[in-house]
Amino acid sequence: MVIASLTVTPVGTGTPSLSKYVAECARVLDESGVKHTLTPMGSVLEGSLEEILEVVARVHEIPFTQGVMRVSTRLTIDDRRDKELSARGKLEAVEKRLEEEK
Amino acid sequence: MVIASLTVTPVGTGTPSLSKYVAECARVLDESGVKHTLTPMGSVLEGSLEEILEVVARVHEIPFTQGVMRVSTRLTIDDRRDKELSARGKLEAVEKRLEEEK
Amino acid sequence: MVIASLTVTPVGTGTPSLSKYVAECARVLDESGVKHTLTPMGSVLEGSLEEILEVVARVHEIPFTQGVMRVSTRLTIDDRRDKELSARGKLEAVEKRLEEEK
Amino acid sequence: MVIASLTVTPVGTGTPSLSKYVAECARVLDESGVKHTLTPMGSVLEGSLEEILEVVARVHEIPFTQGVMRVSTRLTIDDRRDKELSARGKLEAVEKRLEEEK
Repeated sequence: MVIASLTVTPVGTGTPSLSKYVAECARVLDESGVKHTLTPMGSVLEGSLEEILEVVARVHEIPFTQGVMRVSTRLTIDDRRDKELSARGKLEAVEKRLEEEK
Repeated sequence: MVIASLTVTPVGTGTPSLSKYVAECARVLDESGVKHTLTPMGSVLEGSLEEILEVVARVHEIPFTQGVMRVSTRLTIDDRRDKELSARGKLEAVEKRLEEEK
Repeated sequence: MVIASLTVTPVGTGTPSLSKYVAECARVLDESGVKHTLTPMGSVLEGSLEEILEVVARVHEIPFTQGVMRVSTRLTIDDRRDKELSARGKLEAVEKRLEEEK
Repeated sequence: MVIASLTVTPVGTGTPSLSKYVAECARVLDESGVKHTLTPMGSVLEGSLEEILEVVARVHEIPFTQGVMRVSTRLTIDDRRDKELSARGKLEAVEKRLEEEK
């Protein structure tokens, strides 16, 4: 399992508001079956590397179907193989450390 | 107000676990007074551009104080000036769109 | 054609030097046939979206074959469809503007 | 010395072409005195962390002075302290490795 962050930014839309595009991307993520959470700066995805790359290709396409002519997509992949990685587990490991230090 | 995502990655630590470093960075963010939320792929910050850059400089320094010799820091700044931006507001705008489409 | 930037960072290697890993990733890029240039902060790739994602999956795997247990990979995709995009063309458009302003 | 990559993306401009904005950012970088190189996916900067963050704040402001209402700025900082880092040195270390393997 890989944890990834994904941000799809339409370029040249004519208005600073992007929620129309982000909502459509979120809808496609929902349909994809890939585990994901929306954050204020993009989505956090969980899945196999193959699943992640496949869904990235699909979501990257969305703004083009909405009439946009240029899309900037950013993906960060965190892939750890000595132990099972999960979005929840990553947060808990940090929270546990913070708790211990108190 | 600017929304930013920040990820500080220590390089060359000798172990794949990074929670020790992330927790210390989170502690410094807590002390900074800058509004922030921890996500599985970094922290989301809210503040003026000046506050954000100042706290980034401070957090970037943390792993060095813990003995690390190389740090890779990623910052993304989302700055919108036609209306007041907030992390909460960004999420709500998308959720409202998703609700309307149903 | 899509222009992309790719950075593959091995985590937990025990030494701040990464050139061993970067060189191996560069070698795999060379063999891939995908057009690419090494910069001090990653590689710039040119190709179809499908080619790019395929080679990203391959390069991301490299540090694991070299014994690393965690890899952080960052990909940014710039995809413009109203005109043919090229890495050279992007640079030239900016240089032309700078020239005209003089 | 820190090596950084910087990408400033204006949002909502109404046209997919960004060269007008990139050229102006490049001009400000030129005037700043900070060592930098334009790549097809952003600029590579070299300087102290303080210099870098200062110039990032300045360049981030440029599209707003050109009438843009939203700017997305991405910064990646590579900071290594066991040896002097340079953009040239990073490339040469990789090229040397590739040469040795032949």
